[in-house]
Amino acid sequence: MRNPQLNGHGELQHLLSLDGLPKSVLTAILDTAEPFTEVAEREVKKLPLLRGKSVFNVFFENSTRTRTTFEIAAKRLSADVINLNVATSSTKKGETLLDTVDNLCAMQADMFVVRHESSGAPYLIADHLHNTARHHIHVVNAGDGRHAHPTQGLLDMFTIRHYKKEFHNLVVAIVGDVLHSRVARSQIAALTTLGVPEVRVIAPKTLLPTDVERMGVRVFHDMQAGLKDVDVVMMLRLQNERMNGALLPSPQEFFKVWGLTAEKLAEARADAIVMHPGPMNRGVEIDSAVADGGQAVILPQVTFGIAVRMAVMSMLAGS
Amino acid sequence: MRNPQLNGHGELQHLLSLDGLPKSVLTAILDTAEPFTEVAEREVKKLPLLRGKSVFNVFFENSTRTRTTFEIAAKRLSADVINLNVATSSTKKGETLLDTVDNLCAMQADMFVVRHESSGAPYLIADHLHNTARHHIHVVNAGDGRHAHPTQGLLDMFTIRHYKKEFHNLVVAIVGDVLHSRVARSQIAALTTLGVPEVRVIAPKTLLPTDVERMGVRVFHDMQAGLKDVDVVMMLRLQNERMNGALLPSPQEFFKVWGLTAEKLAEARADAIVMHPGPMNRGVEIDSAVADGGQAVILPQVTFGIAVRMAVMSMLAGS
Amino acid sequence: MRNPQLNGHGELQHLLSLDGLPKSVLTAILDTAEPFTEVAEREVKKLPLLRGKSVFNVFFENSTRTRTTFEIAAKRLSADVINLNVATSSTKKGETLLDTVDNLCAMQADMFVVRHESSGAPYLIADHLHNTARHHIHVVNAGDGRHAHPTQGLLDMFTIRHYKKEFHNLVVAIVGDVLHSRVARSQIAALTTLGVPEVRVIAPKTLLPTDVERMGVRVFHDMQAGLKDVDVVMMLRLQNERMNGALLPSPQEFFKVWGLTAEKLAEARADAIVMHPGPMNRGVEIDSAVADGGQAVILPQVTFGIAVRMAVMSMLAGS
Repeated sequence: MRNPQLNGHGELQHLLSLDGLPKSVLTAILDTAEPFTEVAEREVKKLPLLRGKSVFNVFFENSTRTRTTFEIAAKRLSADVINLNVATSSTKKGETLLDTVDNLCAMQADMFVVRHESSGAPYLIADHLHNTARHHIHVVNAGDGRHAHPTQGLLDMFTIRHYKKEFHNLVVAIVGDVLHSRVARSQIAALTTLGVPEVRVIAPKTLLPTDVERMGVRVFHDMQAGLKDVDVVMMLRLQNERMNGALLPSPQEFFKVWGLTAEKLAEARADAIVMHPGPMNRGVEIDSAVADGGQAVILPQVTFGIAVRMAVMSMLAGS
Repeated sequence: MRNPQLNGHGELQHLLSLDGLPKSVLTAILDTAEPFTEVAEREVKKLPLLRGKSVFNVFFENSTRTRTTFEIAAKRLSADVINLNVATSSTKKGETLLDTVDNLCAMQADMFVVRHESSGAPYLIADHLHNTARHHIHVVNAGDGRHAHPTQGLLDMFTIRHYKKEFHNLVVAIVGDVLHSRVARSQIAALTTLGVPEVRVIAPKTLLPTDVERMGVRVFHDMQAGLKDVDVVMMLRLQNERMNGALLPSPQEFFKVWGLTAEKLAEARADAIVMHPGPMNRGVEIDSAVADGGQAVILPQVTFGIAVRMAVMSMLAGS
Repeated sequence: MRNPQLNGHGELQHLLSLDGLPKSVLTAILDTAEPFTEVAEREVKKLPLLRGKSVFNVFFENSTRTRTTFEIAAKRLSADVINLNVATSSTKKGETLLDTVDNLCAMQADMFVVRHESSGAPYLIADHLHNTARHHIHVVNAGDGRHAHPTQGLLDMFTIRHYKKEFHNLVVAIVGDVLHSRVARSQIAALTTLGVPEVRVIAPKTLLPTDVERMGVRVFHDMQAGLKDVDVVMMLRLQNERMNGALLPSPQEFFKVWGLTAEKLAEARADAIVMHPGPMNRGVEIDSAVADGGQAVILPQVTFGIAVRMAVMSMLAGS
């Protein structure tokens, strides 16, 4: 079966999911991102790699934060960026997703950054581009339903490599609402591919997918046990809309059992790093003392996220 | 009477309507657009013609699709583009349309791309600029009420000329909701000016203006008869809000009688082209087999639309 | 006590309020703005002073007009501009203001242009940047609650200096809803600092702060008396939401007593200029004959506003 993410030469054609990307490609993206972290330190944060290219941020679901990171990355590469909030636009007029895509292709798009509430929408678009032989147009998944959020997963890997140098000797724990998290799936896929020997998930049973063990992870339903001697703690965001629902007690009760406090973090290795994809619910999934503490690398994650997105964009469409 | 669209030398000063533009100006725009179709094929899709110029997309009515085409065209010409969704802004605060315009002029605008729900609003603005002697500021009508949508009409003419080379030997049919269409009026004006000997409109009586015959068109109330031997079929979009109303039966019934199917299209010449301004209602005014078929030039219309808008903008404000 | 607006060398670090800025800094901003008024007259309205810098328009409160002026100013300085309408974004997800700021800092922002409905929010951000030693990131207050709107105050000062050359011999009257106006406070602070010997406020008692006399102004409750022999009339905007409320009669009655008409303006000096921050309520706080008359400098205010914002931005972050 054709891998829609790679072209005939095994190079990145689209970024849809970290699941299915070989280690060599993941590593190439991380390596490409390295020098981009220095661009941000310069007086003029600008490279001409995407000059004259048209990048469309096609957001079928609103996400200012994610859209902003892609917009900055594209502008620092000198691309022309067009933001489309499609929810308020053509789909209302009854146009199909692929008609919208066809129209934007006809406007000579070079890249689509796609956010969609339905899992698989970016795949559908990539397939359509393939079937219509538009091999010069690239898709980046900026989050699709519960499925994937690959640039988040990549920036997480970049962060881990930055602080821990190697993957082969790590114990990594992912904590929280794995069931509803597109971030978690991308993370597990990438950690496994990059050779992390032990990936743990720590969550209440109600917030785990039924097939979680098949993902190659160790499951814990207890924070103290799960965090024991880990090198990396990756917190997940608890969606507001989940709280007080059937699956969960109140935010206060959740915090008591599953919130990351300094006390619980003490179970981890002394040099363990704490990550969070943001935005944080302080006092729900994470205590402020930890979020602002010396082990947190939450803001560096954001910084590395720009570099990683620049890397992906330049690998896909750079001249 | 002064033609507000032309300056003292007969050159384009504003683009408000194709009605009232002489053939020489229409042809000049189409000729200017030709090389811009090649810019889009380049590695760096960028020309410096509007560098340092400020283009304001002033949309009093939301239209992401149209706004996007102008934004891309302006950015490819290196302009600074400012998007203003005025519906949510000053007019709410009680400011008049002309006060808003005066303010944007005072910010040293070079061009206004105006979308307004009221017919004539772009004329009002152009008149105001004339009366206040701001001859260096230009207006492009991006759709005003039921009146005009001239860049759509121009891209249609560009498309017809691209595929048919000449206008003087064509039979062109416009099909659908002529009554509510600002596109149809622009099309009829341009086709007539450019010398198309026979322009037909095909529509139910309820979707035709009462004075339609005075526009110099042949009226048909039957698809088969109207499409007979035509060279160009220009479909109109059926507004969702019209359906199921007093003027129309259900979408299904409309499609049965007025929808363009392969069977009906067989009445046209074998080399007839099918156009649609988008977004399409598949299964209402057009069948998918036709929309995606070999005679459809609907996506090239979009591509030519960028080139035509670049042409208009560079003729108005290019250095 | 540390002045958060100045760095250790007494140079502008943030622009938060005109209150607390020394005369030398105010004058330096106005002087810096002078040549920028000429940029706008050029064929290519573009300077490279902020090239490669990332300016974030962070608007927690919607204001298309103000956002547009900053966006134009930043683009004319060649900055990358990112518009963030935060009301519809992260704060909804429960993220705190400072977490939002931390995230944007981590994206290597160089400048925040902040609009917030709460007085003091830009100060809070500036303090946070100071406490976290991010001295390379600058804050411009684009309006906070009822507190301040310093670039509006600066463009007013620029306008007065442009037409009156000196401040030391002027009588200036501020007319209208001082109570709810963030503009008025900035104006009074700047006029006083720049040496205007007599600043008057003219308003009904219900629209004055209780401590107004402590601001060093002369209070008038009568238009004729208050406008007598003034050099500058600075009208304030009457917020729509104030009208017909407990504090005010109908717009018609307000206009009769407090609206600026030619008749009332005749009390001022013959060469007095009339200013308004916009958007105007014609027939409420100002008569159209005055707004469009020879003494009004309302549109030049807008033009100078771009130059002043370019000056502030280039002083803060220019290379």
